[in-house]
Amino acid sequence: MGLKIYFLSCIGLILFPIACKCKVYYSERLPFDLRCSNYLSKELKHEINSYRDIVQHIMEQMQSAPLKDVLYDEYTKFIDKFGARPSGSKVLEESIDYMVNLTIKYGTDTEEVIEVKTEELEVPHWVRGEESVKMIRPRLKNIAVIGLGSSVPTPKEGIEAELIVVRSFHDLEQLPKNDVKGKIVLFDREYTDYEENVKYRIRGASKAARKGAVATLIKSITPFSLYTTHTGEQDYKKSVVNIPAGAITIEDSLLLRRLFDRGEKVILKIGMQSTYDTKISRNTIIDLKGVLYPEKKVIVSGHIDSVDVGEGAMDDGGGMFISWFVPVGLKLLRLVSKRTVRSILWTAEEPGLIGAAAYLKRHIQELDNITFIMESDEGTFNPRGLDVAGSNGARCMIAQILKLFRPIDTLTENDEPGSDITLFTRKGVPGASLLNDNERYFWYHHSRADTLSVQNKDDVVKCAAFWAAVSYVISDLSVDIPRD
Amino acid sequence: MGLKIYFLSCIGLILFPIACKCKVYYSERLPFDLRCSNYLSKELKHEINSYRDIVQHIMEQMQSAPLKDVLYDEYTKFIDKFGARPSGSKVLEESIDYMVNLTIKYGTDTEEVIEVKTEELEVPHWVRGEESVKMIRPRLKNIAVIGLGSSVPTPKEGIEAELIVVRSFHDLEQLPKNDVKGKIVLFDREYTDYEENVKYRIRGASKAARKGAVATLIKSITPFSLYTTHTGEQDYKKSVVNIPAGAITIEDSLLLRRLFDRGEKVILKIGMQSTYDTKISRNTIIDLKGVLYPEKKVIVSGHIDSVDVGEGAMDDGGGMFISWFVPVGLKLLRLVSKRTVRSILWTAEEPGLIGAAAYLKRHIQELDNITFIMESDEGTFNPRGLDVAGSNGARCMIAQILKLFRPIDTLTENDEPGSDITLFTRKGVPGASLLNDNERYFWYHHSRADTLSVQNKDDVVKCAAFWAAVSYVISDLSVDIPRD
Repeated sequence: MGLKIYFLSCIGLILFPIACKCKVYYSERLPFDLRCSNYLSKELKHEINSYRDIVQHIMEQMQSAPLKDVLYDEYTKFIDKFGARPSGSKVLEESIDYMVNLTIKYGTDTEEVIEVKTEELEVPHWVRGEESVKMIRPRLKNIAVIGLGSSVPTPKEGIEAELIVVRSFHDLEQLPKNDVKGKIVLFDREYTDYEENVKYRIRGASKAARKGAVATLIKSITPFSLYTTHTGEQDYKKSVVNIPAGAITIEDSLLLRRLFDRGEKVILKIGMQSTYDTKISRNTIIDLKGVLYPEKKVIVSGHIDSVDVGEGAMDDGGGMFISWFVPVGLKLLRLVSKRTVRSILWTAEEPGLIGAAAYLKRHIQELDNITFIMESDEGTFNPRGLDVAGSNGARCMIAQILKLFRPIDTLTENDEPGSDITLFTRKGVPGASLLNDNERYFWYHHSRADTLSVQNKDDVVKCAAFWAAVSYVISDLSVDIPRD
Repeated sequence: MGLKIYFLSCIGLILFPIACKCKVYYSERLPFDLRCSNYLSKELKHEINSYRDIVQHIMEQMQSAPLKDVLYDEYTKFIDKFGARPSGSKVLEESIDYMVNLTIKYGTDTEEVIEVKTEELEVPHWVRGEESVKMIRPRLKNIAVIGLGSSVPTPKEGIEAELIVVRSFHDLEQLPKNDVKGKIVLFDREYTDYEENVKYRIRGASKAARKGAVATLIKSITPFSLYTTHTGEQDYKKSVVNIPAGAITIEDSLLLRRLFDRGEKVILKIGMQSTYDTKISRNTIIDLKGVLYPEKKVIVSGHIDSVDVGEGAMDDGGGMFISWFVPVGLKLLRLVSKRTVRSILWTAEEPGLIGAAAYLKRHIQELDNITFIMESDEGTFNPRGLDVAGSNGARCMIAQILKLFRPIDTLTENDEPGSDITLFTRKGVPGASLLNDNERYFWYHHSRADTLSVQNKDDVVKCAAFWAAVSYVISDLSVDIPRD
């Protein structure tokens, strides 16, 4: 994994845009319509409106038997069969083979044929070993811990050291180096939103190491905990000692803070084992060829890999599956559009958008032919609309299309929607991420609680229907989504 | 631990009355007042109403500095210092010593002196060892498990067997014995309420063993899970083979149900170690002597022991602490009443009301002198009122007292309120359990999530204030709470 990719990926991880403060919601229709009058001709509005019936058809068919059951049964069978699918693992590759074969099963039985292929790339393969944190003083207590992705291991005998608890990077910087040297640093920033808190997950170890710490812990990133640990990737800065990094529960973080504030000397013993190498994995590319402009692509996507705990049902089994079902479902409905509908099942998103970066590099000459790129990686709860990157013209056109889907017609603006697709929207490709009722997303995210129990069949099916119908309209219009 | 006690305790466990369907809520005041006119004389109403100022004084003082901070700081320091306090453990006995000393610290510095003593009894000492469940087939997966209290261990090498999933005892009974023999039975009853579900925790192992099962699992008893396991006591029937019993998460229970319903052959390997013996523990008895009728007691109580996971902050650290603070807080306010206010910190509630049963046996001749017995073991969230056992006259009198506490004035009827005190209310002693906003109680109950993070300082302090003021009024009135 090259440095450049790592750089990109870490930005991506930081800016993962759920609940992004920069969003602007269009709840008032009129001002938006007025602003869009410059961008939408009467003819284009008329053309978009002409898709009302087909949108209704897709929405209805996808949410009725047999399609809704095909989708949801295959989805649940997939999750139950494979569980977690971490980057570089054998099970991830088996799950990719499975999705290829599933595509062939559903995609090649009529004359409209779906094409499926994979593209290889090198991915990180970090494997968690035994992990434990014991409070040795002021009393013996086991503290649940989960190592952060790419963390170095502790020595076999573990690291026993005094704990120091700091609220922020700013507070850490204020401390004399001697207060930190040789200690374990716990960052216990209160949860406000993912973007602010994830900085401590990604950069905490390097920031603490620079002050002489021997290991770091963070408070798990979640607004709600039932003694739940949440993992996720971290990143070491160059020229700083790599020290082990883990996450503990909110509950234990608060306990350690109370003891620390009372002036108790807290001693922890941390043992965290892991191994690291690289493997070959694959992006999976599924095309329902366009009949007029096959070279032009409307891409829908989700990532097939997951973190190594839980079942990866929500992140991103749901998003991956509804994206897989766009070409497959349209084909089952015998609907082919002017442009190619391409579904991409990204590999190795979790260690840092590795699959998307490889695809971008490989297809860098084809960016002009990506009419629109979509991603679902923020939950497949009840769908609400789209979080859109692109020019004003692009957003106006998407807003007009969303009117066909009322009440699923919320449009938010975001220059970096989603995770993998930010690599593309930064290059000027217009794109969107699925908006949905994901208020509880971070209760489950990167934890053992990311299982099928999070998901609701009707919601997932509705997301899939919306996803397919939006893709169909964009891929079939006479004009492309405009760029700047 | 004798059989009789065990029998009592298991009934207590089954009938633990949170969200009990038999409750009658008095939201309409008028009909209740009319019915009570037979029981409440004008003079008694007048006398009760004369406590309005003192009630307000106690409520205010208890919820202001310094008392509120004394209570909550001592509570949090206690929980942080000891964590879980399982029956028979050294840490439980240390925590009892600590509470005795804390009582002496706060209770003997003025002329109104609090008396504290302990009474010994034999308690179960079940100690959890290594526990694991692995799904061997159809794929390898670790399944989080928590053994149920008093479960026998598996053989060292574990038990590997096919799984059968059943919804209810009825469904189990319908199965041919050969379908169950040699198998692991998972009871996956959907959560409706504690009383219905806990039957499977308590009796599941014996019911399954009678059909030839080799081990049992239950779906953890909770309405909400973040991959959370919930333990609690179970009970073996006589003349049935004792087989190991554990609880798994809702998430894994649903997974195993899906696999089973698809006709997959599911093989699990269960390893559960534990040891069992008995130890000596102590009930702690704290008296603020009454000035007119010292032999008459108003008892307030909570249990000091907890299950062995989590920190026992909610169950029952909160209830125990607010009960401890009734005599202590009243004494700090220099308020002494006509009757004795007795606080009891029960030991060994969790393995089956062992401490309460021993107290009952020892003090069986003194039941007539228990004016009222109260318990807080269902949470110390925002207080709402009292769940009352006793005659109509008793309930009417309590309802009249509760009017002093509006809006904390809900009265519900329950012949078996609370857990420990049901042993007394069954004998005709009038009593009550604390009603509070405990809708999420079972999210945390008997799990690693029962920590101080569940608690809110203002709520706990308000419970303590209410608890003390109610106790004061009952212990100071000119007449006893009537019996049948």
